[in-house]
Amino acid sequence: TAPRLRVLVDMDGVLADFEGAVLRAFLARYPGEAHVELADRRGFSVLEQYRCLREDLEAKVANIYESPGFFLGLEPIPGAIEAMKEMIHMLDTDVFICTTPLLKYEHCILEKYHWVEKHLGPKFVERLILTRDKTVVSADLLFDDKETIQGAEPKPSWEHILFTCCHNKHLELQPPRRRLQSWADDWRGIVESKRRS
Amino acid sequence: TAPRLRVLVDMDGVLADFEGAVLRAFLARYPGEAHVELADRRGFSVLEQYRCLREDLEAKVANIYESPGFFLGLEPIPGAIEAMKEMIHMLDTDVFICTTPLLKYEHCILEKYHWVEKHLGPKFVERLILTRDKTVVSADLLFDDKETIQGAEPKPSWEHILFTCCHNKHLELQPPRRRLQSWADDWRGIVESKRRS
Ligand SMILES: [Mg+2]
Ligand SMILES: [Mg+2]
Repeated sequence: TAPRLRVLVDMDGVLADFEGAVLRAFLARYPGEAHVELADRRGFSVLEQYRCLREDLEAKVANIYESPGFFLGLEPIPGAIEAMKEMIHMLDTDVFICTTPLLKYEHCILEKYHWVEKHLGPKFVERLILTRDKTVVSADLLFDDKETIQGAEPKPSWEHILFTCCHNKHLELQPPRRRLQSWADDWRGIVESKRRS
Repeated sequence: TAPRLRVLVDMDGVLADFEGAVLRAFLARYPGEAHVELADRRGFSVLEQYRCLREDLEAKVANIYESPGFFLGLEPIPGAIEAMKEMIHMLDTDVFICTTPLLKYEHCILEKYHWVEKHLGPKFVERLILTRDKTVVSADLLFDDKETIQGAEPKPSWEHILFTCCHNKHLELQPPRRRLQSWADDWRGIVESKRRS
């Protein structure tokens, strides 16, 4: 029997539009305030970029995503739901959603479960892995928008595919690192490339 | 530099006394009702054993552990907190708490985070991994009271040490499987045995 392929898919920035929601909520709550357009986002941490813009904006932006309802209200990334529903039916393939909760976990955690149930259904809730260290989860692939993923395991078993997001699109990746530009890009080809290797 | 050892520790039945709390709450809520004494517990699922006793008891016992406050109110297993606080300070050792939430996750998930923060502190909250499949988490050791742990990975990297609990104490393990009888047993020796191998 063919060995099964295991795929980890990150949530914020890959399945759920964290960046878009932060900006929209910021503009709604602090109209006229200085802010960072998505085209100007740089670096994984939206908090850090707002702090660099003006120190007091850090607390304002944290307040946005620590608020109740924020994570549940995230819009799906275009094509993500369809891709996940297709991927879970692929032969010899195990799909997990692998996400890091905020340190201020009060609303974030339960809302992530609700989001997955709402948009993907209960079968995917069973495939949710919450961890602040993704290097200890073993798999063939990890689709994630964070440029560098480190943790307790110095040699993670997965190949990290950088999922393109406003904050990472300007980064030049060192070969042989690969990107998925969006869910309209060839994610099936990337999955199949691991099966052959 | 010495390679670091990674230890996963289960929560219910290993750190938190799930079985004791189920029985206590059952007796309090349904006084005089048929029930299973801890000495008579057999099999991982308390639900199943109550159903076998009398079909309508299944819903009653599920109701106990699905209630708000149940998971947060669990008593620590004797010695567990002290062992974890010692283990996290061991040289070249990474400790994670690896726990499977209920399918009815509504209260369970957030209360597990609160329990860890309350009894072990915020540093351990960052070491919490929620997953319904522990075979995909890579480590050297897994302390867990469930007799058989299966999932997507046919050959998990960890050695499963069966933590003795009322429901598994009568099981005879196939060699070379090992047990930890309690936190007063030689968990340090088991940890060190993996470092040498
Ligand atoms: Mg992300
Ligand atoms: Mg357990």
